[in-house]
Amino acid sequence: MSFSPLIRQLIDSLRILPGVGQKTAQRMAMQMLERDRSGALRLAQALNAAMEGVGHCSRCRSLSEEEICGLCRDPQRDDSLLCVVEGPMDVHAVEQTGFRGRYFVLKGHLSPLDGLGPEAIGISELLERINQGSFSEVILATNPTVEGEATAHYIAQLLSSKGLIASRIAHGMPLGGELELVDGGTLAHALAGRRPIQL
Amino acid sequence: MSFSPLIRQLIDSLRILPGVGQKTAQRMAMQMLERDRSGALRLAQALNAAMEGVGHCSRCRSLSEEEICGLCRDPQRDDSLLCVVEGPMDVHAVEQTGFRGRYFVLKGHLSPLDGLGPEAIGISELLERINQGSFSEVILATNPTVEGEATAHYIAQLLSSKGLIASRIAHGMPLGGELELVDGGTLAHALAGRRPIQL
Ligand SMILES: [Zn+2]
Ligand SMILES: [Zn+2]
Repeated sequence: MSFSPLIRQLIDSLRILPGVGQKTAQRMAMQMLERDRSGALRLAQALNAAMEGVGHCSRCRSLSEEEICGLCRDPQRDDSLLCVVEGPMDVHAVEQTGFRGRYFVLKGHLSPLDGLGPEAIGISELLERINQGSFSEVILATNPTVEGEATAHYIAQLLSSKGLIASRIAHGMPLGGELELVDGGTLAHALAGRRPIQL
Repeated sequence: MSFSPLIRQLIDSLRILPGVGQKTAQRMAMQMLERDRSGALRLAQALNAAMEGVGHCSRCRSLSEEEICGLCRDPQRDDSLLCVVEGPMDVHAVEQTGFRGRYFVLKGHLSPLDGLGPEAIGISELLERINQGSFSEVILATNPTVEGEATAHYIAQLLSSKGLIASRIAHGMPLGGELELVDGGTLAHALAGRRPIQL
């Protein structure tokens, strides 16, 4: 059975969502058509409103519907700390740790094979932001992947002449992890980064 | 960090999709905003077009953007066989088996506790369809759940006076299944439904 054109178009369009394959998209389309048409119309409206209204904060490059986002405007935060991340979801993750400094959001990580160099990921905007601020430490919180490490290393080198501390988030055992299950590289980092126990 | 209103609204709206929780909805929203705004706008358009343009086939009650759907109009199909299913996704599943009769799509199954009786799931439309057709067999392909069985049984009783064969899809071992892993009820059905081996 081939679906009718409008249903097929809906299924195809749903597949732009991350993690949604053909089967899931079919189930989503059927579910909305059979049981929640008003929800589907609200979703269409929310998509249009967000794509139209949400841009990037001119200061931290995070997603924002205002010229300068709430986090950047908040006067309660520590202006001496800047946390650099790869994407807006990472801001959300770091916020939940209780961090209360400022942020800068890169457009991903350096990826020479994909043609993504420093300009493409926003390094010059980062340097501009640092020059305009009064930071004493820049925390490089890119992902602990090969590309994330390379990106952190590249930025640290650029900052080395500026008299700023450039720090990197620690690697080690995830909480609740088991030694026999974690990969060797992580365990090696955990050992190398060991600290005296405070009693 | 709380997301800005338009992003929050988008995340909430995405949660109407089956299997999409808060975390997945956040990832979907960020991904679209950061990397695929044109895809998101196409999705909004497809949602509007489908909710507006797709109704139900007046003959089989399946989803269709025409008064009578392609399957019902197809002159090549066997008019003596009617397959009754619980929803439009089931039509798709049965089609893939090579079945080439006609269909009738119920609105789910009987569920007295939820107030869903014969009228609510479209039993009278089914009877009307059967009366208008020239079927010799009605295959009850509702799900092999308690509610699906009860629904099949209910329909079979209604049809018993009409001189029609009302058949039920077989229960048994799924292909590739292992005896020690399958539940007892399934295995009991598989034993009771055993057949002589054709050599
Ligand atoms: Zn900002
Ligand atoms: Zn039809």
